[in-house]
Amino acid sequence: MPADDVAALVAGAVEGQPRAVARLISLVEDRSPKLREVSAALASTAGRAHVVGITGSPGVGKSTSTSALVGVLRAAGRRVGVLAVDPTSPFTGGALLGDRIRMQDHATDAGVYIRSMASRGHLGGLSASAPQALRVFDAAGCDVVLVETVGVGQSEIEIAGIADTTLVLLAPGMGDGIQAAKAGILEIGDIFCVNKADRDGANSTRRELRSVLSMTGDDGGGSWKPSIVMTVATTGQGVEELLARIDAHREHLAASGELGRRRLARARREIEALALTEVQQRFAHLSGHADLDDLARQVVEGGTDPFAAADRLVQAL
Amino acid sequence: MPADDVAALVAGAVEGQPRAVARLISLVEDRSPKLREVSAALASTAGRAHVVGITGSPGVGKSTSTSALVGVLRAAGRRVGVLAVDPTSPFTGGALLGDRIRMQDHATDAGVYIRSMASRGHLGGLSASAPQALRVFDAAGCDVVLVETVGVGQSEIEIAGIADTTLVLLAPGMGDGIQAAKAGILEIGDIFCVNKADRDGANSTRRELRSVLSMTGDDGGGSWKPSIVMTVATTGQGVEELLARIDAHREHLAASGELGRRRLARARREIEALALTEVQQRFAHLSGHADLDDLARQVVEGGTDPFAAADRLVQAL
Repeated sequence: MPADDVAALVAGAVEGQPRAVARLISLVEDRSPKLREVSAALASTAGRAHVVGITGSPGVGKSTSTSALVGVLRAAGRRVGVLAVDPTSPFTGGALLGDRIRMQDHATDAGVYIRSMASRGHLGGLSASAPQALRVFDAAGCDVVLVETVGVGQSEIEIAGIADTTLVLLAPGMGDGIQAAKAGILEIGDIFCVNKADRDGANSTRRELRSVLSMTGDDGGGSWKPSIVMTVATTGQGVEELLARIDAHREHLAASGELGRRRLARARREIEALALTEVQQRFAHLSGHADLDDLARQVVEGGTDPFAAADRLVQAL
Repeated sequence: MPADDVAALVAGAVEGQPRAVARLISLVEDRSPKLREVSAALASTAGRAHVVGITGSPGVGKSTSTSALVGVLRAAGRRVGVLAVDPTSPFTGGALLGDRIRMQDHATDAGVYIRSMASRGHLGGLSASAPQALRVFDAAGCDVVLVETVGVGQSEIEIAGIADTTLVLLAPGMGDGIQAAKAGILEIGDIFCVNKADRDGANSTRRELRSVLSMTGDDGGGSWKPSIVMTVATTGQGVEELLARIDAHREHLAASGELGRRRLARARREIEALALTEVQQRFAHLSGHADLDDLARQVVEGGTDPFAAADRLVQAL
C-alpha cells in the first residue's frame, strides 16, 4: 500500500499490523497534513481500550512498573499499548532525554505497541497530542493503554485529564508524601502504588499516604476509595494485585457512569485545545492594528495595556 | 480614599503606600471587574524593576534563599517586591498549602512588599496572572522583584517566561542534577545556585552541574555564560556574591539588547494568553451547532472527530 494511504493504514491498524500503528502515530505526532484525515478515519473506532495514566516523581520506578504491568497483562493474553510521554523542554525541543533504554523485554512481542511521544510544551500540552495516539492504539485492538509520563512537570497533572484510571507511584525515602501533596498529584490518583516496597521506610510511606488521603476525602468519582498497593516492580511482587485494582477501577467507572463522564470531559478539553491552537495560529498571522508584535511593543512602551491589546486581537479574528 | 478608586490606589502605590499596593494586587489576583481599569492605569508605569525568577525542586531552600536575598538587597537600600506563586492544584483550588510561614524577618520592613499568589492552573498559568502583579510592584518603586515558585510543576518553566533573570536553585544529595535536566530547568537558568553548600556532596553537585551546563551550551542570551554560585542561605554565606551575579546579568541584558527582547516576548505571551482566555470563555457560551458539550458527546460517540468539532467552534466565534 502507499505509505500514507490513511484508509489503508487504519485498516492495517485494525488488523493489528505494527507498521500501520507506528505510521499512524507518526502522522499524528508530527502534526502532518494528514493529521485531520487520520482523526476523521479514527472517529468511529470505539473507545474500547482502558487508558491508564502512570505518574510520579522521577526515581520512583515508573518505567519498571510500566514494564511489569505489561508483563502481567500479556500473561493474561491482553493486548497492550504503551505511550511514554516526554515533557520535553518547550525551549529547545530538548535532546537531554536520549538516555532512555526501556521496555526491551517487550520489544519483540506482537501484542505490545510501544511508543514515545514528546509533549513539547505546546498549548494544550498532553491533551492536544496524546488523544489521537490513544485512538490509534484503540483502533489496533489494545485492551489497555498505559500512558507514562517521563520526568516531572505539568504533564503529571495533565495525565489525569486523558486517562480513565490514574495511577500515582511513590517510593520510600524520597519525601514523596508531602512533595506529592504540594504538586497536587495526590488529588488525581485513583490508585496509589508504593513501589520499592522492599526498602526501608515503605510502611511509613504507606502510613503517611493513607493519612493524607483520608484528609483529601472523595475525589468526585462516586464511591471509589483510592487504594494503596505495595509493589517491587523489579521482581514483580504486588504487580498482579496492582492490575486487579486497575481492573476493579475500570469496573467501578463503568458501573457508576463515571467512565462516560470522564470521557465526555476529555473530549471537551480536546476539542477546546484544538480550537484554541487554531485561534493562536490565527493570532500570529494578524496584521495592521492587530499585529501581535506591534501590540507587544506598545505594551512594553506603556502606550497600551495588555487587556486592550488582547481585545484588538480577539476583535480582529 | 474610596477603597477601590483605582486612580487613587495607583497614586498611592506610586507613593509607596503598602495598603494601596496590597489592594491593587488583590484586585489583579481576584480578576475583579476593576482588573481592566487597574491594567490600563498601570500601563504607563515604566518597566524599571528587575524581575528575578527563583525556581528549583522542593527542599532546595527557595524560601530561605529568597529571604536572604531580600536581606542583602535591603542592606543596600534597594526596594524589593516578593511574589510567591503557588502552583495550586487545578482540581480543587488546593488547600494543602496552608503550612507556609515565611519571610517573617521582613514582614515589618516598609521597603519590602511580600505577596503570595495562586497560579490556579488556568489557561496561560503564570503568564496570565503574575505580570499585572509585577506591574504593581514596579509602580510602587521596587528596584527588584523576586518571583518564587512554591513546589513543582509547569510554573518552574513558566517562570522563565515572566522573569528578566532566572535563578535555578539546587542542593546537594537530592539527585537534582539529572532530575533538573529532565525537567528542562537547566535550560532556563541564567544563574545557578547550589544552596546548602556546607553539606556533603555540594562540590560534586557543582561538578555535575558544570558538566551538564557545558553540554547545553549557550541559551541564546548572547555572550552570557550561566554561572554557578555556592550559598548557605540560612547563614547568608555566598548571598552577596549571588546578588552580584544577578546584578551582572541585568547589566548584560541591558547592554546586549536582550532585556528588550525578553520583555517584548513576555508582553506578546501576556497579550496572547489574555486573548485566548477571552476566546475560551466565548467557546463555553456558544450554542446550537457549536455547543461544546454537544460536540464532545458526538466525539465520544464517534459521530465526529475532534478536529471537525474544533472547526465548528472556531467558525462560530
